[in-house]
Amino acid sequence: MTFFLSTRDAGFAADFAQLLSMKREEAEDVDQAVAAIIADVRARGDAALLELTARFDRMALTAERLAFSDDEIEAEIARVSTEDRAALELAAARIRDYHLRQLPEDASWTDAAGATLGWRWTPVSAAGLYVPGGLASYPSSVLMNAIPAKVAGVSRLVVTCPTPGGVVNPLVLLAARIAGVDAVYRVGGAQAVAALAYGTATIAPVDKITGPGNAYVAAAKRRVFGRVGIDMIAGPSEVLVIADGDNDPDWVALDLLSQAEHDESAQAILITTDAGFGQAVAAAVEARLQMLERRAIAGASWRDNGAVIVVRDLDEAADLANRIAAEHLEIMVAEPEALAAKIPHAGAIFLGAWTPEAIGDYVGGPNHVLPTARSARFSSGLNVLDFMKKTTMARMTPEALRAIGPSAERLAVSESLQAHGLSVRARLDRLNG
Amino acid sequence: MTFFLSTRDAGFAADFAQLLSMKREEAEDVDQAVAAIIADVRARGDAALLELTARFDRMALTAERLAFSDDEIEAEIARVSTEDRAALELAAARIRDYHLRQLPEDASWTDAAGATLGWRWTPVSAAGLYVPGGLASYPSSVLMNAIPAKVAGVSRLVVTCPTPGGVVNPLVLLAARIAGVDAVYRVGGAQAVAALAYGTATIAPVDKITGPGNAYVAAAKRRVFGRVGIDMIAGPSEVLVIADGDNDPDWVALDLLSQAEHDESAQAILITTDAGFGQAVAAAVEARLQMLERRAIAGASWRDNGAVIVVRDLDEAADLANRIAAEHLEIMVAEPEALAAKIPHAGAIFLGAWTPEAIGDYVGGPNHVLPTARSARFSSGLNVLDFMKKTTMARMTPEALRAIGPSAERLAVSESLQAHGLSVRARLDRLNG
Repeated sequence: MTFFLSTRDAGFAADFAQLLSMKREEAEDVDQAVAAIIADVRARGDAALLELTARFDRMALTAERLAFSDDEIEAEIARVSTEDRAALELAAARIRDYHLRQLPEDASWTDAAGATLGWRWTPVSAAGLYVPGGLASYPSSVLMNAIPAKVAGVSRLVVTCPTPGGVVNPLVLLAARIAGVDAVYRVGGAQAVAALAYGTATIAPVDKITGPGNAYVAAAKRRVFGRVGIDMIAGPSEVLVIADGDNDPDWVALDLLSQAEHDESAQAILITTDAGFGQAVAAAVEARLQMLERRAIAGASWRDNGAVIVVRDLDEAADLANRIAAEHLEIMVAEPEALAAKIPHAGAIFLGAWTPEAIGDYVGGPNHVLPTARSARFSSGLNVLDFMKKTTMARMTPEALRAIGPSAERLAVSESLQAHGLSVRARLDRLNG
Repeated sequence: MTFFLSTRDAGFAADFAQLLSMKREEAEDVDQAVAAIIADVRARGDAALLELTARFDRMALTAERLAFSDDEIEAEIARVSTEDRAALELAAARIRDYHLRQLPEDASWTDAAGATLGWRWTPVSAAGLYVPGGLASYPSSVLMNAIPAKVAGVSRLVVTCPTPGGVVNPLVLLAARIAGVDAVYRVGGAQAVAALAYGTATIAPVDKITGPGNAYVAAAKRRVFGRVGIDMIAGPSEVLVIADGDNDPDWVALDLLSQAEHDESAQAILITTDAGFGQAVAAAVEARLQMLERRAIAGASWRDNGAVIVVRDLDEAADLANRIAAEHLEIMVAEPEALAAKIPHAGAIFLGAWTPEAIGDYVGGPNHVLPTARSARFSSGLNVLDFMKKTTMARMTPEALRAIGPSAERLAVSESLQAHGLSVRARLDRLNG
């Protein structure tokens, strides 16, 4: 049953703690199977990839056909309607514009001691983007992963996407084309992640792997972490709406259901200062649920994980929101910026009644790959920096070394690292001698 | 035997590949033991912590004595010499100055469609720093982890440090005091990581855990990743020196040995354009080795993992350096900046003969927690952003929604996410109706 809570209730603290700690998804333990698949791909390369693809995706491929050819891609994307193409292109342009502003700056300065210090940002050389097959094969996610990589300056960007029974979503191929992806490989699962991390004769290894996937893909990413960089391990999606009584309950209901329709384990929470409004939203959710094609999924999510919380005032709302640390936070109150300033912990914030979260999923510009399961307390949505790394730079002059070298030598000695100290001392002796 | 390679040798490609793929450290498999320790601390809290500390550190503690008291800290740091204190304070000031420049800026702009977009950086609320006990209990690492956290604005910063037999390094407590650490707990191992991630009655949970540790600590950090943020899982340290013949072989030898003395699995590599210089450095290494207290460790590292590579020119050196992607890179050639520009993949670069890597370990300013094992291809050294997270912000006006909403609706429909589309449509209908 959807939670109905009020901060005025005696049992609120315990109920809210239960809501926070609720485990919405049982992690399937596929780690041993994934370890075997990775070992197989490392040992046998393409041969393993082809066998596993035949088994899991019922696809008889050859190494030559692992990648879609240009002709195949052209033929598939020719099936996309003009309207869908225009929508994807608008989304791509807006996502690119937003992420271009994230490009970081290098720095270099000379300090009072005469030391020149700074840092330099550079892109990873190659990145691989995992795109799920079937129903969850979202072209918007291709844009959200690929565009930050291209903006960062990644030289080689490839996609792996399973095509069970040979079926591919033409919009996924179009999105990859629009985003500037270099190659799309018809492989999925842990075997695709293994190929991206270790390389095969056909698929060159990459340095960073991003993108969503099922339990096998998640377990494989965790296993190759360190060999390559990965993005976060995403959990079920969630939205928190903070709304006062001056809102249309139907709009809020649809925003909650936008989250709920993703997955039975998704979570949609409303915090409101107006108990009557909360009831109206709950009624609107029930009404809208009847009309949805995905009502079984959305209904289960709302019933099992949904919540309406009535608070005394917006300060209480901010306090609870910080504890929830939601992936998506909609703020539908008179002064949304003022309330947002009190809520540091959220993945993405949507301000005002005219900003449904769905805008952010597609065309707003910010990324829709966001920290779930309260990890917004310590992590950020996917961004350009995820595809770059920073190298620190230092240059001493003889004078700088004379000024700060003795302290380095002293600390090295205190840590019993004699050669560290001697490497400084040998240079100081030259200066002094 | 130390590798002696030349790019002119017929077998160079294979030898270099072997050097790159060499496994320098066997990962100890402690995962099951660590899982049990974490489960115990989650279930029994302080009681488990105290029992495990009694067993592993031979320390009979009570919950009240888990944290060092102010009096205990004062008594310990009173033992530090004036000179050591001054060196630590100089290091702290320089590290703070460098990291202050890393503070990121928020952004907000309104685009042509009328959408206001941007992002906001905020610190994690609480961070925990793991400090090893015994010989590897480095005060410099306390500064390198704690200062970026404080610069980021972390409100609560705690240290855990095992004190086997009750022994603590006074310099570690002084470094924690100088860096502004709020509390130091006498616990270590996987149990300390579990306490930081899940909390006990005495130790409140944190959002991010950083700092080096043994195999148990590393396995525990991997396990709690997701529940909290962690920094990288560090491997054995490494240095690459690129030097032409116009250098003092003894300086280069000491720089190589600075790395080698850390650990038998550390790696020190010299790339030089001058074969005779390479021989002279190797001879200097042997000579200096005789004098080192840690000659057993440094000698084993140099013998098993060390290398001297002779190249035809600096372009070859840059190419090899990018493949090595070293944690520390020293460039001792006539124009070090020009060569550095050709080497995107390195954790930290030290430019010119007057910049020994040991300066960076202590007083240079940049961080000494750096990506090992070729991970500089995709990751950065510890920095202020590791203790912050970015929240994206978006606000639509009715006009902005009218301009871009239809494309969002169209893409939602194409992905069969009906409620997403309806949440936009309901608002557009209000505008139009």
